[in-house]
Amino acid sequence: MTPLPISPGPILQFLDVFGIAMFAASGAIAAARARQTFVTAAFFALVTGVGGGTVRDLLIGAPVFWIVDPWIALIVLGAALVIWVTPERWWAGQGLDWLDAIGLASYAVFGAAKALGLGVPPVPAFLMGVVTACVGGIIRDVLAGEPSILMRPELYVTAAALASALYVGLRLMGFQGFAVSLVAAGAGFGLRAAAIRLKLGLPTYRGR
Amino acid sequence: MTPLPISPGPILQFLDVFGIAMFAASGAIAAARARQTFVTAAFFALVTGVGGGTVRDLLIGAPVFWIVDPWIALIVLGAALVIWVTPERWWAGQGLDWLDAIGLASYAVFGAAKALGLGVPPVPAFLMGVVTACVGGIIRDVLAGEPSILMRPELYVTAAALASALYVGLRLMGFQGFAVSLVAAGAGFGLRAAAIRLKLGLPTYRGR
Amino acid sequence: MTPLPISPGPILQFLDVFGIAMFAASGAIAAARARQTFVTAAFFALVTGVGGGTVRDLLIGAPVFWIVDPWIALIVLGAALVIWVTPERWWAGQGLDWLDAIGLASYAVFGAAKALGLGVPPVPAFLMGVVTACVGGIIRDVLAGEPSILMRPELYVTAAALASALYVGLRLMGFQGFAVSLVAAGAGFGLRAAAIRLKLGLPTYRGR
Repeated sequence: MTPLPISPGPILQFLDVFGIAMFAASGAIAAARARQTFVTAAFFALVTGVGGGTVRDLLIGAPVFWIVDPWIALIVLGAALVIWVTPERWWAGQGLDWLDAIGLASYAVFGAAKALGLGVPPVPAFLMGVVTACVGGIIRDVLAGEPSILMRPELYVTAAALASALYVGLRLMGFQGFAVSLVAAGAGFGLRAAAIRLKLGLPTYRGR
Repeated sequence: MTPLPISPGPILQFLDVFGIAMFAASGAIAAARARQTFVTAAFFALVTGVGGGTVRDLLIGAPVFWIVDPWIALIVLGAALVIWVTPERWWAGQGLDWLDAIGLASYAVFGAAKALGLGVPPVPAFLMGVVTACVGGIIRDVLAGEPSILMRPELYVTAAALASALYVGLRLMGFQGFAVSLVAAGAGFGLRAAAIRLKLGLPTYRGR
Repeated sequence: MTPLPISPGPILQFLDVFGIAMFAASGAIAAARARQTFVTAAFFALVTGVGGGTVRDLLIGAPVFWIVDPWIALIVLGAALVIWVTPERWWAGQGLDWLDAIGLASYAVFGAAKALGLGVPPVPAFLMGVVTACVGGIIRDVLAGEPSILMRPELYVTAAALASALYVGLRLMGFQGFAVSLVAAGAGFGLRAAAIRLKLGLPTYRGR
């Protein structure tokens, strides 16, 4: 396993760890709501937290991040533990949606950035951001036997696409540094937040 | 990412692109029928169109085709767009089944051919054709929350198995060239077509 | 594809083949119970039998075992055939659960052992045992459209975690050889067996 030829920088690394922890927490919440045991909750936290990044690393041919870095597992288990011991009302209502939104925006930007850093062309790098941001939540929903978030009316994939496209586009235009990641992740999170609060959605197919 | 040590030839390359486009269209149709947005339809087109080939490339250790070749993404998005703007009656009824059938036969042959070209032994190469041909449709059905096509009574896996087995068998017997691919894909498509039209099926398990 | 830098020893190799055959049989039973055809049953046997090990090999960057070793496919198809031709009452009732339990314990130990052998750190190697032991059964349940075994009340992930943790822990403490594998797999199987027989379960989440 060769070391990655990129040094993603502190903001990107923070986004990555943050995305992992938020998705892990959302997985643990889904298991807790389904009245599962702590072990199942930890398993859900793991596959939800690292699922998107695992698919990303496999697709771009990078060593799978949580296999080479043992800290990731502890972050995931820590997130599951926090959910387990905190009062349910703290994350009642739309708590799952908000954690998922942060994970979505963070993963979209980090996924696109890691792909670009490994020499993936812009269009696949953009798709990499979208796919990997959505995979964690999809795995969680499919495992829990709930309708995938993809099929619910609110903007979801679109928010990931906005964050990923903005990041790749700004990088293509020559922009560099912290601000690019923050702007792109912020825009994606903002759109998803608007979708959650305002029930915002794109027009759906109506046939012709 | 090293270039592939095979030159698959124009017929195989056409089958590959054709299979991707047909599966992508079937994914977009599934999303449209579920009254989703265009972004979700494009996402479905992507995971359905490239899902089988992605699993194939990961299993045989090849670079994932749509990461190294940016045209694939445009083919997939183009297929989603065609579905979105054409009248629904064009692909009403069994339209999804027919597109899926073409994708199934094409992917079965191309999957087996690519595996053989990379030095995979005949039995796993045959299975590679079967598995990767079926994965796209399975992902589409699972994401849409519909019963997987595997569980419906008609011949499905069998058609992929026929195309893949015929291709590997003819190659083992020393046949080469365009005709092998066309015969194998044609036989697989023919069997699946018969299954769709005549409700053809293998005997199902009845217990003993 | 480079050869593996480990020689797993006869007990581990037996556990591996045994796990594959048991999971394959459980996949074929699931298809038979759903009154599918033999081809679908063989497909289920394949994805259930090799699913966990495939995910393991992809994650740790090893060549996928059933692509390089053509015998695996024959073991899987043989297991499907045995299920198909034997009387249904032989594996009625909880037969599926018992085969799955053997596969679970075997895969957990072999997965952790293969990961350790490739230099994966202990925590991810432990998780590798857990994840890959659970993946086969999850794929089978999702494809069959049944609620994933993860969501049923009995101990399941926990049994895999016990086997994997025991194996990694004993190896860290310096123990070597056959006994480590047998003790770890036996403990995991024993816990799962107790869960099946006594409806044993961890306390589930009750909110706070």
